[in-house]
Amino acid sequence: MIRFENDYAEGAHPHILERLLETNEEQSPGYGMDKYCESARTLIKSACDAPTADVHFLVGGTQTNTTLIASVLRPHQGVVSAHSGHIAVHETGAIEASGHKVLTLPSEDGKIYAEQVRGAHAEHWNDPTHEHMVQPALVYISNPTEFGTTYSKKELENLRKACLDCDLTLMMDGARMGYGLASEDNDLSLADIARLCDVFYIGGTKIGALFGEAVVITNGALKKDFRYMIKQKGGLLAKGRILGIQFETLFQDGLYMELSRHAVDSAMTIRAAFESNGFELRYDSKTNQQFPILRNMDIEKLSKKYSFHTWETVNETKSVVRFCTSWSTKAEHVSALVADINALKRQP
Amino acid sequence: MIRFENDYAEGAHPHILERLLETNEEQSPGYGMDKYCESARTLIKSACDAPTADVHFLVGGTQTNTTLIASVLRPHQGVVSAHSGHIAVHETGAIEASGHKVLTLPSEDGKIYAEQVRGAHAEHWNDPTHEHMVQPALVYISNPTEFGTTYSKKELENLRKACLDCDLTLMMDGARMGYGLASEDNDLSLADIARLCDVFYIGGTKIGALFGEAVVITNGALKKDFRYMIKQKGGLLAKGRILGIQFETLFQDGLYMELSRHAVDSAMTIRAAFESNGFELRYDSKTNQQFPILRNMDIEKLSKKYSFHTWETVNETKSVVRFCTSWSTKAEHVSALVADINALKRQP
Amino acid sequence: MIRFENDYAEGAHPHILERLLETNEEQSPGYGMDKYCESARTLIKSACDAPTADVHFLVGGTQTNTTLIASVLRPHQGVVSAHSGHIAVHETGAIEASGHKVLTLPSEDGKIYAEQVRGAHAEHWNDPTHEHMVQPALVYISNPTEFGTTYSKKELENLRKACLDCDLTLMMDGARMGYGLASEDNDLSLADIARLCDVFYIGGTKIGALFGEAVVITNGALKKDFRYMIKQKGGLLAKGRILGIQFETLFQDGLYMELSRHAVDSAMTIRAAFESNGFELRYDSKTNQQFPILRNMDIEKLSKKYSFHTWETVNETKSVVRFCTSWSTKAEHVSALVADINALKRQP
Amino acid sequence: MIRFENDYAEGAHPHILERLLETNEEQSPGYGMDKYCESARTLIKSACDAPTADVHFLVGGTQTNTTLIASVLRPHQGVVSAHSGHIAVHETGAIEASGHKVLTLPSEDGKIYAEQVRGAHAEHWNDPTHEHMVQPALVYISNPTEFGTTYSKKELENLRKACLDCDLTLMMDGARMGYGLASEDNDLSLADIARLCDVFYIGGTKIGALFGEAVVITNGALKKDFRYMIKQKGGLLAKGRILGIQFETLFQDGLYMELSRHAVDSAMTIRAAFESNGFELRYDSKTNQQFPILRNMDIEKLSKKYSFHTWETVNETKSVVRFCTSWSTKAEHVSALVADINALKRQP
Repeated sequence: MIRFENDYAEGAHPHILERLLETNEEQSPGYGMDKYCESARTLIKSACDAPTADVHFLVGGTQTNTTLIASVLRPHQGVVSAHSGHIAVHETGAIEASGHKVLTLPSEDGKIYAEQVRGAHAEHWNDPTHEHMVQPALVYISNPTEFGTTYSKKELENLRKACLDCDLTLMMDGARMGYGLASEDNDLSLADIARLCDVFYIGGTKIGALFGEAVVITNGALKKDFRYMIKQKGGLLAKGRILGIQFETLFQDGLYMELSRHAVDSAMTIRAAFESNGFELRYDSKTNQQFPILRNMDIEKLSKKYSFHTWETVNETKSVVRFCTSWSTKAEHVSALVADINALKRQP
Repeated sequence: MIRFENDYAEGAHPHILERLLETNEEQSPGYGMDKYCESARTLIKSACDAPTADVHFLVGGTQTNTTLIASVLRPHQGVVSAHSGHIAVHETGAIEASGHKVLTLPSEDGKIYAEQVRGAHAEHWNDPTHEHMVQPALVYISNPTEFGTTYSKKELENLRKACLDCDLTLMMDGARMGYGLASEDNDLSLADIARLCDVFYIGGTKIGALFGEAVVITNGALKKDFRYMIKQKGGLLAKGRILGIQFETLFQDGLYMELSRHAVDSAMTIRAAFESNGFELRYDSKTNQQFPILRNMDIEKLSKKYSFHTWETVNETKSVVRFCTSWSTKAEHVSALVADINALKRQP
Repeated sequence: MIRFENDYAEGAHPHILERLLETNEEQSPGYGMDKYCESARTLIKSACDAPTADVHFLVGGTQTNTTLIASVLRPHQGVVSAHSGHIAVHETGAIEASGHKVLTLPSEDGKIYAEQVRGAHAEHWNDPTHEHMVQPALVYISNPTEFGTTYSKKELENLRKACLDCDLTLMMDGARMGYGLASEDNDLSLADIARLCDVFYIGGTKIGALFGEAVVITNGALKKDFRYMIKQKGGLLAKGRILGIQFETLFQDGLYMELSRHAVDSAMTIRAAFESNGFELRYDSKTNQQFPILRNMDIEKLSKKYSFHTWETVNETKSVVRFCTSWSTKAEHVSALVADINALKRQP
Repeated sequence: MIRFENDYAEGAHPHILERLLETNEEQSPGYGMDKYCESARTLIKSACDAPTADVHFLVGGTQTNTTLIASVLRPHQGVVSAHSGHIAVHETGAIEASGHKVLTLPSEDGKIYAEQVRGAHAEHWNDPTHEHMVQPALVYISNPTEFGTTYSKKELENLRKACLDCDLTLMMDGARMGYGLASEDNDLSLADIARLCDVFYIGGTKIGALFGEAVVITNGALKKDFRYMIKQKGGLLAKGRILGIQFETLFQDGLYMELSRHAVDSAMTIRAAFESNGFELRYDSKTNQQFPILRNMDIEKLSKKYSFHTWETVNETKSVVRFCTSWSTKAEHVSALVADINALKRQP
């Protein structure tokens, strides 16, 4: 079975394992106060052109989202998200478990737009009974989104302006950050993101690390006591240096973007194969997730050799599926898949 | 600087890193559904003589305690703990953040006893206003405790009986489980613990793993939906196999107990050095943590070469300190320390 | 200004104030353990033909919903509600603040139907990643709904069957219970509701009391420790007898239904006036809330003399408004309003 | 049975019931936006010499404490309290249920002192692992305390200074505020309290009202969005005017202090009877709660005619009991009790 079902099927980039081996016997202070974390922080701040930012390392995405949101909001405040946002759907109510409502906005492409944010804000404050409703205070976006789409610089600037005008904090879930930055559509740099978001994170789990997410806090008002929050939410790894070593390796010599580009290139090859055979794509993703609409008989055929996610039923004969590539996707697996796509009966 | 400040200063046992390397390119399903987790589960159930137990792998101790406690309790219920219990002191209020009060009992040695538990239960239910107070429903013990002491089989059996009589659930925090089992005082086996506790966990972070805690649920009533709880609390590692591989390695060929014995032997050597020089010990620990009472001038001297934790002020001239050994403590570091202890001015 | 803006604009039915005066100097035990609460419990159990039910008195609706939901659910579970349900919109995130997600279903008329509940249940359990999502465990309905509509006996029976089949608990928010029971469409009795719901409450605040909601728990599994939950959520009134006296008065000699019928009759008179003048109604409410669609110029005219709620914009020239009657609505106010409706320019 | 078991055994002062009757048919806006609340706010701000304060009315004490504390703290912060504080003992974990640890300090007399607060603050911040512990951020005191004792102006000023120096917020639970102010020992005015606390509340439930607590927020930083918090915690009474009418009545013509003095005078008469017969008092209370130490045979005798609370076991033959007076304690009941105390066998 060749796995295209997610972007965390393998271990870590070999350089990371090598570095873990090399440093294994060294003794370090715990909880992220070691020299590797310090070095990784410096590299990331430099990559983000954000010398005064705070950088923290957490283990996983759900943990990171919960910790960030709980740190920013007061109890009566909620976080605005696309209805398809990870926090709204796939975190077993972690945000609610820390006391906050996810205020969802409709979305076709997984993104939310400045005008929607302004609308949600106005709707709340114009309602004379607004004190009976959850107050929108934070805007959550993922880039790339859960549908593989990305924000343009213009769109992010507009969101930023909307947040400033409405006194809202803007956070970006970058669990797949590199795959967005490596997209052919992308015109954002990490520095742009650091400038336009109050806080965001750069995902390692899905891009070359064993695990790990690097939180970057650029808004000074959000920095205070964040390590307490990480500890309370169970994210302060005792052997924090493992996170430092991983992010140091990823952010040295451009490895993070190199791995990201590999995944995106593989995905675009697969996308081209679907398109050239007349298959429609559910979302216009230029990143590592591809969502073709397949006939159920095609799904059955491909399932014998490949694992992938059945995303959504279209009708009795068709479904949307998801193929994921990653930093570790093998060229021969992509070739095999392309050949098998070409062998499917062409969509009329 | 030679570090005796904690038991998580180094990386992982080399076998673990080797296995991570060997399996690195394999593709696995995520979230603990892989064959390594399955194999590790089988090994642990066998080690615990608990074929029907559920075994889950989480990343760290605070996360594990919070997840377990939140899973067991209803909102008006609390968890009984020694006042020195990790959950009562050192988790930044994680238990309270998930809604529950830690009901503390006084303790000289870090342990709580059956009679105390019966007393707390009686005090609650005999009070006519008990509905105005948090209901004790779960008993938390750590073994070894935060002070390095351990429970005897008799003590644990008594606690078990008290819990049964009082309709209380019994959980054991085994973040340093191996170091307790390797203690010369110990008469408990993992099978005893599995038989006497409703749920417990076996720590990996402090005993040879990069990180990881293995939860063993033996009480059938506590098994339901536990994976939802792990996910909600941010503990469901995407690349769950990393946890599986680590615990598989630790529980093959007796590695876990071998590493544990090494740490305890090192600690007992250090203890002997303190005792033979007339230094008093704050707690009677036969495990990997030692708490000698030192003159401040001794502390100053040793601090130049060793890092260790200053635990508690005794008076103007003396303090309790903590020396921790671990699975990776080097023989030459122990010898050096013993020599330097012998060189201290003898306690009268 | 004549107020039709809500159903809690006045004080309490005079009988209630009389009884408070008569009993004012008596000394009672606190927290609902007095003879008036006991008597009210007996009357309500009798009215519900539910001799083994537990009855508790709380102060307000948000408090009651939060307490009930927090008592029933485990942390990873959520409550299914119409998107328009009070708990989903108008409680400032009280449900989320106690840790639970409100899982909303679309609804045109404020009701949810058995098939929707079965669908939500199936969708959750059929998803292979269901552990990453909030588990539906409780179904919340309001009767009458926030739109004034009511459930038929058949609909409630179907919901009951769906809940049984899907292992879901069924709760009914009866903040306006009497106004539903007094509706001409209604074929439900309190006994039916007690038989078909696991737990529900009978609102006093909006029907003759100064304040107060009577919770009726018929499912034995939900009874345990409920008074702890009330206390924790701040709902255990010290002078609990005030609640007992009010519900005793309301449930003696049919006062509760008498007051309810008065409100509904008044509302139907107003509805008839709107309809006979060609005004459309947004919802087909036969209870105390009426939702006519008015031209903005009509709204302006009526606003000079009456207060009412502007509910929703229809288009540039029209809006939905809400007129509420209550147990204390004065006949002369209804007549005046009818005359003023008749004086509006007839809708074409 | 004559009840001295608590201070909420009767209804409300007759003036309050009269005013409820007089205003019963008036129509008011809901949720505290009516003219009676407005008038009560003005009277209270005037009584506190705090023209810029925000005043809110809630229903009960547990609710008020929870709402205040949840509004002030971030998730990793806790509230410092005497171990005997109401929030630490008698609110079924309401504070923990909203996510916060109660950090208890030992106390002999129910009070905490500036030096203790400074000590707790220093202990936290001096610990190098402070991020692993709950951060003290709010100081809770009750005046009078749960033991009937009161703070002097000097003590409160010292607490204030400590809080300022340590960047801590100071809140006062005044559930029995009037009984403290009416104590012969008292040298505090409401204006002093308003000047020295960031937020406090004035209890109505125990001093003449059916129910109700008036929160006074003097620290501007704590005012924002407090009504959202009240709503979320279930404390925003629909017919808010009932609270307004009650506090307006209590704060007109000095009724609140008149009622308070009556209770305290009654209590001091009872205290004198115990003292003159040689009975020791557990706490030196000059307020409405008295805690004599009685022989169990005395308790048995008095229990036939009076209800009172058995507080604490002293030894096999003696216990501490609590006698509570209130605004409504009848002179003949006090006389009867005094006679019966005099008839007890004199303590040697």
